[in-house]
Amino acid sequence: MNRAPFDEWMRDVQAGMEDALATLLPPVSAAPARLHEAMRYAVLDGGKRVRPLLVHAAGELHGADRAVLARAAAAVEMIHAYSLVHDDMPCMDDDALRRGKPTVHVKYDEATALLVGDALQSQAFLVLAEAGGDPSRAVQMLRVLAAASGSAGMCGGQAIDLASVGITLSLAELEQMHRLKTGALLRASVMLGALCGQMPDAQETAALDAYAAAVGLAFQVVDDVLDATADTHTLGKTAGKDAVDHKPTYVSILGLEASRALAQKLREDAHRALLPFGDNAQRLRELADLIVQRKA
Amino acid sequence: MNRAPFDEWMRDVQAGMEDALATLLPPVSAAPARLHEAMRYAVLDGGKRVRPLLVHAAGELHGADRAVLARAAAAVEMIHAYSLVHDDMPCMDDDALRRGKPTVHVKYDEATALLVGDALQSQAFLVLAEAGGDPSRAVQMLRVLAAASGSAGMCGGQAIDLASVGITLSLAELEQMHRLKTGALLRASVMLGALCGQMPDAQETAALDAYAAAVGLAFQVVDDVLDATADTHTLGKTAGKDAVDHKPTYVSILGLEASRALAQKLREDAHRALLPFGDNAQRLRELADLIVQRKA
Repeated sequence: MNRAPFDEWMRDVQAGMEDALATLLPPVSAAPARLHEAMRYAVLDGGKRVRPLLVHAAGELHGADRAVLARAAAAVEMIHAYSLVHDDMPCMDDDALRRGKPTVHVKYDEATALLVGDALQSQAFLVLAEAGGDPSRAVQMLRVLAAASGSAGMCGGQAIDLASVGITLSLAELEQMHRLKTGALLRASVMLGALCGQMPDAQETAALDAYAAAVGLAFQVVDDVLDATADTHTLGKTAGKDAVDHKPTYVSILGLEASRALAQKLREDAHRALLPFGDNAQRLRELADLIVQRKA
Repeated sequence: MNRAPFDEWMRDVQAGMEDALATLLPPVSAAPARLHEAMRYAVLDGGKRVRPLLVHAAGELHGADRAVLARAAAAVEMIHAYSLVHDDMPCMDDDALRRGKPTVHVKYDEATALLVGDALQSQAFLVLAEAGGDPSRAVQMLRVLAAASGSAGMCGGQAIDLASVGITLSLAELEQMHRLKTGALLRASVMLGALCGQMPDAQETAALDAYAAAVGLAFQVVDDVLDATADTHTLGKTAGKDAVDHKPTYVSILGLEASRALAQKLREDAHRALLPFGDNAQRLRELADLIVQRKA
């Protein structure tokens, strides 16, 4: 067990992630250079790397090797990055700013943004398929990532989100949307981390999934609170956009205070789910705290 | 070896493909219903299923099971279908007609078309990851499909295509573009079919790849000839579009007669590559003929 302070551990994982992504993305020296440049622009030097941190925290709990985890984490992060590139396009959220930089379709053009997203998705699966190691474990990881990315996961949540603009959702419907849109990939991150190490048993898998579900929802509740309260500079993306777009959010349905209370409750749920793991789950606990207490 | 007449074999594979795709795509009864409906609209009831035919023909040469082949073929066809949905979008080729029907962004909307393509790509990898059977073979198949789909394959070719509008390409540059844009997935189809059966040795693999490369290029040369000579009704997509869009084609570089002669030469190359397989390669030979002689 790595006993460094959390901040140090986090910076260490984030730096390792940047190296892994730089290595696992196609180089600009290979043709087509502009596409590769844009893919790297979309992925490198940005983001909190929440999904990679979850992969690493869950993996370290199961004794996984850091290099093996970095590859799995890179695959998840490529899926996440592709979804941001496509979500920002004019036909979706039409956003010009992401991670404090112009979005891909603004910096390049729409057709390139479309292809960058498409190619990043393929690259994510290629990275897992080329990982080496036990092939039956690799197939399981590919299945987890593909299921979390597709119409029963992230893409499905995005479709529900699109259909819900200007509509009054119930709290249950809002939760269902987020379970798919962001929750599925966050849960996949935890599962992928676990699959990199000693295989968790059914009870451990259920505990990890309960943790991931709570953290996934907390992440979204906090996102909604930040969109309503933080400024664009702090967020690195356009603030206040949900209200302008008439999107249903936790804040619009529950109000600000109840949303904050819900985030705290979900954090406690996440902690409770980790009880069977004892001290070994320290990183996962710290990550739940980070996700709820973040300011951007 | 299946000795039915080619037409009968082809219709049989195509019908089986339709069943496999209908089963392996998410049902409309599952949420989000509209996304699933649009995914099925994009894939079902359309196309010549050239890639699935290649998977089956190469697989039968290697003694593969029909049901195993159908799953691999469905995965390739989903990748192909997603690429058509995205290519037809306004920011790419902006086309309103595909396989004789309105394109997905016309029938639904742009955001849905974007998500349909994204979700179909995930679904393709999910279908392979859920295939069961030997996991090391499954990982190989996932690697082949991911590599053929990404920036070193189909997406890369599309990026080169975008960058070449209004530019004079040399014949070598045009060929390189098509090797990636359509050739990579056609070659992957042949490899996936082979991987479903008895493992080909290095010499057989090289022969199959030479066949696939020739057929892949022939496919594109014939596409260019048809775009310049057939009508929209026959093609099921807008004819004469390459010239209007100032896209470099075999016809624009070589002229019509030399393009037709090139297609015949590539067909002979494909036949020659199959010589080591003798009579067993009959279906692959017939497919090369079909691809060169097709009228749409």
